[in-house]
Amino acid sequence: MKIETKIAKFNEPLYLESGRLLEEFEIIYETYGTLNEDKSNVIIICHALSGSHHAAGRYENEAKAGWWDKFIGDGKTIDTKKYFVICSNNIGSSYGSTSPLSINPSTKKEYRLKFPVLTISDIVNAQMKLYEKLGIKNAIAVIGGSMGGMQTLSYAIEHPTFAKHYIALACTAYTRPWVIALNKIAIEAIRHDKAFKNGEYLKDDLKASGLVGLAVGRMAGLIAYLSPNLFNKKFGRDYVSTDGLYELFGRFEIEKYLEYNSYSFPKFFDPLSYLYICKTINIFDAGRNKDKLEDSFLKIEGKLHLISFKDDMLFFKEEMEEIRDIMEKIGKKEQTTYLEVDSSSGHDSFLVEVEKFEGHIKNILLS
Amino acid sequence: MKIETKIAKFNEPLYLESGRLLEEFEIIYETYGTLNEDKSNVIIICHALSGSHHAAGRYENEAKAGWWDKFIGDGKTIDTKKYFVICSNNIGSSYGSTSPLSINPSTKKEYRLKFPVLTISDIVNAQMKLYEKLGIKNAIAVIGGSMGGMQTLSYAIEHPTFAKHYIALACTAYTRPWVIALNKIAIEAIRHDKAFKNGEYLKDDLKASGLVGLAVGRMAGLIAYLSPNLFNKKFGRDYVSTDGLYELFGRFEIEKYLEYNSYSFPKFFDPLSYLYICKTINIFDAGRNKDKLEDSFLKIEGKLHLISFKDDMLFFKEEMEEIRDIMEKIGKKEQTTYLEVDSSSGHDSFLVEVEKFEGHIKNILLS
Repeated sequence: MKIETKIAKFNEPLYLESGRLLEEFEIIYETYGTLNEDKSNVIIICHALSGSHHAAGRYENEAKAGWWDKFIGDGKTIDTKKYFVICSNNIGSSYGSTSPLSINPSTKKEYRLKFPVLTISDIVNAQMKLYEKLGIKNAIAVIGGSMGGMQTLSYAIEHPTFAKHYIALACTAYTRPWVIALNKIAIEAIRHDKAFKNGEYLKDDLKASGLVGLAVGRMAGLIAYLSPNLFNKKFGRDYVSTDGLYELFGRFEIEKYLEYNSYSFPKFFDPLSYLYICKTINIFDAGRNKDKLEDSFLKIEGKLHLISFKDDMLFFKEEMEEIRDIMEKIGKKEQTTYLEVDSSSGHDSFLVEVEKFEGHIKNILLS
Repeated sequence: MKIETKIAKFNEPLYLESGRLLEEFEIIYETYGTLNEDKSNVIIICHALSGSHHAAGRYENEAKAGWWDKFIGDGKTIDTKKYFVICSNNIGSSYGSTSPLSINPSTKKEYRLKFPVLTISDIVNAQMKLYEKLGIKNAIAVIGGSMGGMQTLSYAIEHPTFAKHYIALACTAYTRPWVIALNKIAIEAIRHDKAFKNGEYLKDDLKASGLVGLAVGRMAGLIAYLSPNLFNKKFGRDYVSTDGLYELFGRFEIEKYLEYNSYSFPKFFDPLSYLYICKTINIFDAGRNKDKLEDSFLKIEGKLHLISFKDDMLFFKEEMEEIRDIMEKIGKKEQTTYLEVDSSSGHDSFLVEVEKFEGHIKNILLS
């Protein structure tokens, strides 16, 4: 599989929903496969909160394969022998696209807390500029889960003729207070970590282990991304064999799991990016600036494919059903498919239980 | 209603499950109503994680009524004209019973992180010493929800002839990794707050606003005590009217609610107590030291009444059903009742939707 990572620089402003703008911006993106001559074999992949443009393969011998490597590659569902796949790092994220740590051209200093709040639509609009630059006018499909699913809905509503298929997994038409509440733990844990210094932390100070407050906040995410049943199956009440049951800080295996996965996270993720992305997710509402959600979905021209996960504890399947019901109500039943996956890994099922829905997506792409 | 708050001092050791002991200990407790001559009108109330002995009424003109005031009082379900009600502050808690901030008689210093880990059984055993001191040999009922329900199960199994009725609400036979994971957020947020100083914080330093890490940890609890549907109904996507939508720290109403309720908490709750109580909850297992849970429940002689709440996101109703099923399996169906409450306030329903189960409890007490 041919993999390329590139940075696209835009010396033009990106006008944002907030009324503010980015005077210039950059997108780091990865591509898999080869763009055909008439540029008609494009598939767009959108990543989630902590994801990156590195969706598949091992670019330059990286240790870890991309986050959707099960799904994207030669001979896989998103067959890179056939399709040219693009995955951009969302602006605001900390993997190389313009973010709060980028230099503000006006002040020649890093934005930090002066970075503008971005919406899902802003992120998508920036990506549309990239396709324009690449001479790509259309895609076969836009696919994304979680925050990537929100982007997919935004593509479908605001760029309705761009793709034939819009495939949204494990997301919602508008973020509910449940998710806003879970994000709040991270926001507060980051803000009140003394080392955060109101966003003016020295990067070198965080080099070794990152911000502890981000680790604590991440823990809330890690819990909500899985499910009570998965925890029971995976960890049960197993106690770390070297820890004493009556030691105050003796740990169950679930605690060890959470420690490992949360404390490793801030080593490669920036706390300011985390704050901004939480905000972007919190204010996502596909019906914003419309009287009704129906009005937004009426704009959809492509096919909308919705995939929900039975035990998703972050974006409940009822939220995906709601989108399906709206599509039916506004007379777009023929344009819509809905699949509920009998999942057992909670929200993360869209990443780890690919085998349960890849056949469905293969059929969509052949249709 | 006659209310009295007293402290009982025990100049004898309390032997703990861990093999350690408290050389001496104190229990602060509150009573409602009047003990009759033959001491046969006693009802025991057990409180939850952040609860206290102050279960009902307004003792000495306190601003806030007790946490189960809807349920306990003259003419109420737990009728204090008829019953003598006792609610003890759990040892380990920070409302006046022996806790990590008590003086260790051996060292003449506060225990702090040298305080022993307590189990639910230890807490119950300490309370049994109180009843002994008061000359109370039996109770009509032991009643508690959440961690108080765990105590109720422990009473039923380990003190099987003490009460006629054991009424456990919104709890579990053993703590699942889901709850351990949620508690982990608090444990990590507290430990890694620099102001915690590895348990050696100066109380004066925390006087004004308490430990921020505890507030962050409490937030995870507040979320799990309620439910996604309740959040939708109560907060929806309402935005704080004075905050700007595109301000990074602009807030939804759910965020304001969480801020208010979590940051007020550490002003009156000690972080060391919180750590120790989380540990007590985490290691609760009614089947410990037994090959099977069945063996524990076989010891029950009184009537066990189980009340679960449909939308409980902390201790799922299936966990209460499991206890019912065990009781049936071991031939104790006649001793068991089960009620699933059609609740809409999540785990907290046992506190706030009393009207949905008080009739049931009234009938139990009359039976």
